[in-house]
Amino acid sequence: MEQKLGELKSRLLEVNDLNSAAALLNWDQSTYMPAGGAEARGRQMSTLARLAHEKFVDEEIGTLLDDLAPAVRQLDADSDDRRLVEVARREFERAVKIPSALVAEMSSHFAASYDLWTRARPANDFRVVQSTLEKTLDLSRRLAACFPGYDHIADPLIDMSDYGMKAATVSTLFAELRAELVPLVQAITAQTPADDGSLKRFYPAQQQLDFGLKIIREYGYDFERGRQDITHHPFMTKFSLGDVRITTRVKEDDLNEGLFSTLHEAGHAMYEQGIDMRYEGTPLASGTSSGVHESQSRLWENIVGRSRSFWEHWYPQLQAEFPQQLGDIALDTFYRAINKVERSLIRTDADEVTYNLHVMMRFDFELALLEGRLAIKDLPEAWRERFKTDIGITPSDDKDGCLQDVHWFAGPIGGAFQGYTLGNILSAQFYEAARTATPAVELELPRGQYGALHGWLREHIYRHGSKYTAPEIVARATGQALTIEPYMRYLRTKFGGLYQL
Amino acid sequence: MEQKLGELKSRLLEVNDLNSAAALLNWDQSTYMPAGGAEARGRQMSTLARLAHEKFVDEEIGTLLDDLAPAVRQLDADSDDRRLVEVARREFERAVKIPSALVAEMSSHFAASYDLWTRARPANDFRVVQSTLEKTLDLSRRLAACFPGYDHIADPLIDMSDYGMKAATVSTLFAELRAELVPLVQAITAQTPADDGSLKRFYPAQQQLDFGLKIIREYGYDFERGRQDITHHPFMTKFSLGDVRITTRVKEDDLNEGLFSTLHEAGHAMYEQGIDMRYEGTPLASGTSSGVHESQSRLWENIVGRSRSFWEHWYPQLQAEFPQQLGDIALDTFYRAINKVERSLIRTDADEVTYNLHVMMRFDFELALLEGRLAIKDLPEAWRERFKTDIGITPSDDKDGCLQDVHWFAGPIGGAFQGYTLGNILSAQFYEAARTATPAVELELPRGQYGALHGWLREHIYRHGSKYTAPEIVARATGQALTIEPYMRYLRTKFGGLYQL
Repeated sequence: MEQKLGELKSRLLEVNDLNSAAALLNWDQSTYMPAGGAEARGRQMSTLARLAHEKFVDEEIGTLLDDLAPAVRQLDADSDDRRLVEVARREFERAVKIPSALVAEMSSHFAASYDLWTRARPANDFRVVQSTLEKTLDLSRRLAACFPGYDHIADPLIDMSDYGMKAATVSTLFAELRAELVPLVQAITAQTPADDGSLKRFYPAQQQLDFGLKIIREYGYDFERGRQDITHHPFMTKFSLGDVRITTRVKEDDLNEGLFSTLHEAGHAMYEQGIDMRYEGTPLASGTSSGVHESQSRLWENIVGRSRSFWEHWYPQLQAEFPQQLGDIALDTFYRAINKVERSLIRTDADEVTYNLHVMMRFDFELALLEGRLAIKDLPEAWRERFKTDIGITPSDDKDGCLQDVHWFAGPIGGAFQGYTLGNILSAQFYEAARTATPAVELELPRGQYGALHGWLREHIYRHGSKYTAPEIVARATGQALTIEPYMRYLRTKFGGLYQL
Repeated sequence: MEQKLGELKSRLLEVNDLNSAAALLNWDQSTYMPAGGAEARGRQMSTLARLAHEKFVDEEIGTLLDDLAPAVRQLDADSDDRRLVEVARREFERAVKIPSALVAEMSSHFAASYDLWTRARPANDFRVVQSTLEKTLDLSRRLAACFPGYDHIADPLIDMSDYGMKAATVSTLFAELRAELVPLVQAITAQTPADDGSLKRFYPAQQQLDFGLKIIREYGYDFERGRQDITHHPFMTKFSLGDVRITTRVKEDDLNEGLFSTLHEAGHAMYEQGIDMRYEGTPLASGTSSGVHESQSRLWENIVGRSRSFWEHWYPQLQAEFPQQLGDIALDTFYRAINKVERSLIRTDADEVTYNLHVMMRFDFELALLEGRLAIKDLPEAWRERFKTDIGITPSDDKDGCLQDVHWFAGPIGGAFQGYTLGNILSAQFYEAARTATPAVELELPRGQYGALHGWLREHIYRHGSKYTAPEIVARATGQALTIEPYMRYLRTKFGGLYQL
């Protein structure tokens, strides 16, 4: 068994190395690559994706997995090796169903599509991307069709990012959450809005960046094993457990943008940096699902980073850094400003209360597009209508309407958005469990310390990587299944304090 | 034939994409990668190198080359397709002789060895790298042993960078050059040395970098298809013909360092940027040899960049940029300073006259090490002795002695250095041909224009990539074989003007 396991690991490592190289090509494309490199880069990423897929679905790996199956069943259910073989088998069985040619076609299509989007969005021109999006929808359906027997065509796509979730489960959960959120949004937006003018003053980019870095260093983001660069659309990426990078963007007339995206991406990165180093290069060395990943970014961005306790420590330093902009703004005014609830256009800028409504409409659009109830050409109009109904305002253009998100231009339609709301729900559930288990979690916040929280998360979530599925991690860490109750309690308490509810 | 040629190109493209990805991993390691990424990065580069090699030596490629051979012989000797197949065959025949395991072992060894060197050199500790260098020598011998039938064990290694050259040819050429250079160095160093104190004043790094970029933009380096970053040891690298990057380093107490390394690397990069875009992704899309490549870096660095005509245009701008440092320094004093001839320790900082003596001693050491006449453990002492004999001074430590060059820590011992001197010789031969054919070449220099020179080089050298071998390129561009005469004429004229000769 040892020898076969070694052979399996060595083959998986090769696949991992190809995928890591592809990730670096992607990072470079989004950060430093000159314009002239785009065409060849798309081709190169597609070559690496195809080779990684070919190497992974090699029948030798199938044979090794078959041979190892009986032996690992003798091992403890919690054994790393048993889990590794099981996770590898799950991913292998998914991968063998997708033809390598489709993998290469998608990779090359998405490189071109992303490139097109970076130009179509500023130009506010949906027509530029319409046929590309139609091709994306076609590819997404062909991808789903590799997994016959699903209940809903979106199921296989949702399953890829949130293993075990289905369109029906997500829809039920979202309906439940929606029933709670809509009256909350109405109650808040009926009141006088918070004044966030102070955040819209002029904040020099470099100072903003430096301040963000200072905070995430205290969070526990390890700069020996990571770095931050500037990009168009912020993301976290990993080339090994020793090299987990984040990117951000800053606006000099909006303090929110760069600061909170930095805290957000650092949350993702600390999850990856916290994975047991012994898993390096194996299928266990990644966060376990899109929802659990997003819970970590939202926890550090919102539950910690937009809390009053957090700013009790940091606000005097922020004022000292920006005396002209914030010298005359009281902590409570600032705290209200960074938590302003409003009907707004952009998902990534949305407050914690309305955010999920943005996600839910995208999720519903994915189902409608995949089912064929909605055509790509009708998306801009459908977006405007649904936006008016759900958020209460109408986007003035497509740039800040259906062109705003990178997702459908960099990956399939289907499974791209539910993780954001799952993450919000889980962020509160995890945080509640952490502070119940370890009161120091709350006590440290006003002192600008995060050791207790980071330690709890590392112990119960980070170090396990993909060893446990999302439902397992949630059960182990919180003692119960995913539930919206802690999240609604969190929102009601926080926004009850800010508004009359 | 068309179909088989298409199949060959598509297979070669896959190999090219893997090699390009490996080049990006290497660039990132030398520029932005955090320390924690080093271990996995070495492994990843080794995986890519091994896969590229495996894909290249696939017997399907051999069959295609065999099948295509008779057909391409029907084509014009100058046809791109014929040349492409011939170059691919030459490289294939070399590659099949090297086992993939050796390729992977070298790649992983050199990643670790480079990492070690970046620490051993500042620490001035040869013992840290001694056993690694011994392993490098062993690997270099094993690599040479893949090509039995050589006259000298260094021949296969020299042939990899300068196709067709042998240890004996190079030694003869170097002896001829040496006989001319030694008396020239003696005649110059017997005179009062130039005063280069003005170059050692304080020059802020960012201003130096900006000035260098301004010059190379005028040279014709295309920033839409390239960029410059900071590194430990400057280099040029290419990810496609649309993305050819350079790196540099600056010292705030030495204006020479960053400025001339920028001009040097831009020379390499313009060669690659100038290759016919139709060759993208094929074996023709690279400079043809180490010597011809170096001729381009040295031409733009020295023949142009250290000429008086060049500074007639740029010196007033440099003075305006650094008024405190250079306001009181006359053009002629500055010109003498940047062309100061002296017995000095560091090859890359050496003046044009002594530079080749540094190269020759390294070349001789490579032969002695490979032959077994010199042991790695005796290298530091041998270095000091030879340095005293050849250059006339003794290095005070190994840091600025045998640890100074990256080459033996990033690649085999053998074939690493001769290209520098071949490049110096060729730079003068090409320049003489260019200015004879196109008098505008010289007339443009004092006006800060380089269109005539760049155009001549693109036409006669750059666009051909590897379509012609180095001897073919030299013959086509200059009408004769490689000869030291133009180079010695150039040195005698230039330094005759600066010193009493």
